[in-house]
Amino acid sequence: MNSNILVFEPVSRTVSLAMSLKKVLLDVKTKYQHVQIVEIEEFGRTLILDGLIQCTEADEYLYHESLVHPVMITHPKPKKVLIVGGGDGAALREVLKHDVVEEVVLVDIDGELVDIARKYLEVIHKGSFNDPRSRVVIMDGFKYIEESNDRYDVVILDLTDPHGPEIAKALYSKEFYSKLTSRLYGDGIIVTQSGNSFFFPNTYGRTVSNVRQVFSIVREYSVWVPSFGYACNFIIASNSYDPARLSRYEVDERLRVRNVSTSYYNGEVHEMFMRMPVLYNRFSVDVDR
Amino acid sequence: MNSNILVFEPVSRTVSLAMSLKKVLLDVKTKYQHVQIVEIEEFGRTLILDGLIQCTEADEYLYHESLVHPVMITHPKPKKVLIVGGGDGAALREVLKHDVVEEVVLVDIDGELVDIARKYLEVIHKGSFNDPRSRVVIMDGFKYIEESNDRYDVVILDLTDPHGPEIAKALYSKEFYSKLTSRLYGDGIIVTQSGNSFFFPNTYGRTVSNVRQVFSIVREYSVWVPSFGYACNFIIASNSYDPARLSRYEVDERLRVRNVSTSYYNGEVHEMFMRMPVLYNRFSVDVDR
Amino acid sequence: MNSNILVFEPVSRTVSLAMSLKKVLLDVKTKYQHVQIVEIEEFGRTLILDGLIQCTEADEYLYHESLVHPVMITHPKPKKVLIVGGGDGAALREVLKHDVVEEVVLVDIDGELVDIARKYLEVIHKGSFNDPRSRVVIMDGFKYIEESNDRYDVVILDLTDPHGPEIAKALYSKEFYSKLTSRLYGDGIIVTQSGNSFFFPNTYGRTVSNVRQVFSIVREYSVWVPSFGYACNFIIASNSYDPARLSRYEVDERLRVRNVSTSYYNGEVHEMFMRMPVLYNRFSVDVDR
Amino acid sequence: MNSNILVFEPVSRTVSLAMSLKKVLLDVKTKYQHVQIVEIEEFGRTLILDGLIQCTEADEYLYHESLVHPVMITHPKPKKVLIVGGGDGAALREVLKHDVVEEVVLVDIDGELVDIARKYLEVIHKGSFNDPRSRVVIMDGFKYIEESNDRYDVVILDLTDPHGPEIAKALYSKEFYSKLTSRLYGDGIIVTQSGNSFFFPNTYGRTVSNVRQVFSIVREYSVWVPSFGYACNFIIASNSYDPARLSRYEVDERLRVRNVSTSYYNGEVHEMFMRMPVLYNRFSVDVDR
Repeated sequence: MNSNILVFEPVSRTVSLAMSLKKVLLDVKTKYQHVQIVEIEEFGRTLILDGLIQCTEADEYLYHESLVHPVMITHPKPKKVLIVGGGDGAALREVLKHDVVEEVVLVDIDGELVDIARKYLEVIHKGSFNDPRSRVVIMDGFKYIEESNDRYDVVILDLTDPHGPEIAKALYSKEFYSKLTSRLYGDGIIVTQSGNSFFFPNTYGRTVSNVRQVFSIVREYSVWVPSFGYACNFIIASNSYDPARLSRYEVDERLRVRNVSTSYYNGEVHEMFMRMPVLYNRFSVDVDR
Repeated sequence: MNSNILVFEPVSRTVSLAMSLKKVLLDVKTKYQHVQIVEIEEFGRTLILDGLIQCTEADEYLYHESLVHPVMITHPKPKKVLIVGGGDGAALREVLKHDVVEEVVLVDIDGELVDIARKYLEVIHKGSFNDPRSRVVIMDGFKYIEESNDRYDVVILDLTDPHGPEIAKALYSKEFYSKLTSRLYGDGIIVTQSGNSFFFPNTYGRTVSNVRQVFSIVREYSVWVPSFGYACNFIIASNSYDPARLSRYEVDERLRVRNVSTSYYNGEVHEMFMRMPVLYNRFSVDVDR
Repeated sequence: MNSNILVFEPVSRTVSLAMSLKKVLLDVKTKYQHVQIVEIEEFGRTLILDGLIQCTEADEYLYHESLVHPVMITHPKPKKVLIVGGGDGAALREVLKHDVVEEVVLVDIDGELVDIARKYLEVIHKGSFNDPRSRVVIMDGFKYIEESNDRYDVVILDLTDPHGPEIAKALYSKEFYSKLTSRLYGDGIIVTQSGNSFFFPNTYGRTVSNVRQVFSIVREYSVWVPSFGYACNFIIASNSYDPARLSRYEVDERLRVRNVSTSYYNGEVHEMFMRMPVLYNRFSVDVDR
Repeated sequence: MNSNILVFEPVSRTVSLAMSLKKVLLDVKTKYQHVQIVEIEEFGRTLILDGLIQCTEADEYLYHESLVHPVMITHPKPKKVLIVGGGDGAALREVLKHDVVEEVVLVDIDGELVDIARKYLEVIHKGSFNDPRSRVVIMDGFKYIEESNDRYDVVILDLTDPHGPEIAKALYSKEFYSKLTSRLYGDGIIVTQSGNSFFFPNTYGRTVSNVRQVFSIVREYSVWVPSFGYACNFIIASNSYDPARLSRYEVDERLRVRNVSTSYYNGEVHEMFMRMPVLYNRFSVDVDR
């Protein structure tokens, strides 16, 4: 109906995805970033930060289930979970599905964004902010990691892309991952979304190298997120648990025991993730900036 | 360098992928279709048919290795292979890597396209047309299936998308698959590319349903092809062999014995394919036309 | 601020203008057409019908002053004026500036559009619908011309483009212009917007030829409307008055006497219009449909 | 035929014009700028410098006739003419039509561009470089003005836009216009293209103000150039001759005497130019950079 109005999502330095806009519900600049809430044909309600799509109603389950469940399932008993970023509340929603969880702290720098998400993205967060186990801290993630004394079983880094806005750059650095170990229990485990290795081989390579300098067990996988125009990469890291050691049967059993129901993730998908090659484009024009 | 000139690739009815054009090498209309050979930033040499990207130098290995090797490996001894479509010669290139192959017949309706590919897409076909085991037949694929008396171990359907140009529509019909069985040995096996299930759930659903009415063993998988803007679906079908029964070790052993070297496909990827959920977008506007 | 969301305005069959969307205020389908009220960077509040920009806050004065004043000034005493189309109320606003006007009838087929305009386009119609001399008739323009018995001094055809949506096609026909003469006093005069001669030489040529078969005095001019991506053509026709006979001094005097104040139009602009060549593009791909 | 490949022409900071590419004939970086020779649907052969369209086969006559003839005609006997920029040879072509001209010097900084134009833009320069009255000097225009000792009757500044690439910025400065007077005979006259006043009111305003500080007679006009997406502004300046003083009859007489034949410009168009208001967009986001 609205094919005369297009939303452009940057995919790489030279590629973008054009989608049909249906509605603009909100367009504001918070203290930290440009926030747009729109509706897009074939994707539904959508959150855009600094011009980059964060999640859409149609396909956010692919991103959020792939971000959250592999790391949650790999830890045998994740009671305390930290989410850095994730102001839309969807990662929070997935974490809370694991009934073994006792507390989830969500640290996001942008309090206005969290307020906007609570109001406009009910279809995405599904009320997860109101769960008694949820606690929202409005604070710079880097600073929280430095200043907090809490420790967590699982840390989930749900950030804007490493090749994207400046706001999240420091949260992909070796220094950050080092400090992060002080926020983890000894058998803690982390996951970070890490943009896209195909179009940003240098940026991705730097991220995975930073992770490897701090953690001994590192696993990589990805999932195609249609509204991103690419397969989004994830990195799981730990000094104790290896997600590749879990069979599909063990994964399905843990999901069952914890009462987790999903649309996409299951034991087969877990095994699939653990067999995935990382893709690098030799024609990429990713350059260090 | 050329960000003022963009190539638009239709991804769905409302989505398209915009890429930076570097060069137009050829732009002609053959008797059957509009053929463009271009160079695209981050993708290199590219073949476009009727406005739809068929393959690019940067990522065609993802498509062609995923199309060809799972079905070739699943057959224990594929001596005679038929490719319908595939005028660019890349599927041919991959088939010929299996040294057990004695003859490959490539049937494409568009002789002009094959001539263009031979001339402009050396970087893609790598001379496969000149292999003594290759035979090119310029003929409508449907008619070839009806009129030929030959039988094949493996048939590879390398066609334009089922939601795309009219030219290939009949080659996704139940009638076509039925006739195809007469061209297969009793233990023959086929694979068809089948567009994208996420954006075209109806079209894809119809294709897989057509296949299921003719073959008893049907397996589905997909691979993200960056220049398509989506994960491309594939369907393997047979009445004898099941690709899901092969372990990664058996796959790697068969590749080794047949002297096949690949960039992407291997035993792990085979297992990954066999664990993949098919994605359907509930917001899709795919409509039967 | 919103450069990730673009509004595309079709300029010709192969050209379009891309602008930055700021806000979507309304997006509905009325019984007759798709109506969008948006805000566009550098253009402000904008009305879009069936995907074609009708007017923007920033540049509608160029279109509406050029449409209305030359014909109004050319008639020595325009008491009764008819506007066909013009549901946004801006042509009405300009007509009412001439204090000699006693009655303006605005006939638009789309009552919902007029209601939308009254509500969302105050910045454009400036309350002209509430002037006691204004009368709105919701009716098909063609039918009104056939069935009404009223006669007018000036008729202003403020329609969607002749190469545009079907809705207005009949209102550019020879038959329509013939019937129109019955609605005019003997010394009546008309003006019609007529799309763009450069990109649509055939369509424009047909319009001007239709006009010429009915009226003996025909004058053509155009004005660049930035948000249309082209210079909009206008045709004035009469059997009595010739706008080319008016000097800049006479025009300025009539404007003064009638208390008309304008942003753009004046005696010099009137003389400028009367000296303008009509542009035709020999590379145009305008085809009769 | 090629609607999947679009050329984007920046119109303002937030607006661009999208056209259908037919062919890329050349795409190189010279020492000074990015040069593209392409063919565009509805526009034909086209020169693009640093991503900005300079001229197209279909509409360059509008630009070049409007640039060259008003100033040439205003001077009663232009024997020596200087063109700064204009490496495509089209302004040269128009100047040479005046048989009163004895010498035209074309100074362009980019020798590679001139060679490319000679080879690829025959359809535009029509061999004007080979006229015995033509002399090409490859040199920075600013430096030429400073260092040359020659004087001219007419100077034509055929530059990239003042809001465009850095390369031409200095050639719109007050300093440049001052120095330029030393290259003019006492009754000399100049014209400069000056981008677009509507979308770039600040930039244009600065240009015209710079001109006014140096010359006592300044006249402004513009012409819609379809492939630019805007009406291009021109400024004529002199201390002796006023183009507004010439009647259409005098213009047509001078054209006749000098054997000049044109497609667009004539006495009526000259009068039209001299009656044109300058347009400024109050919604413009032109900012001084």
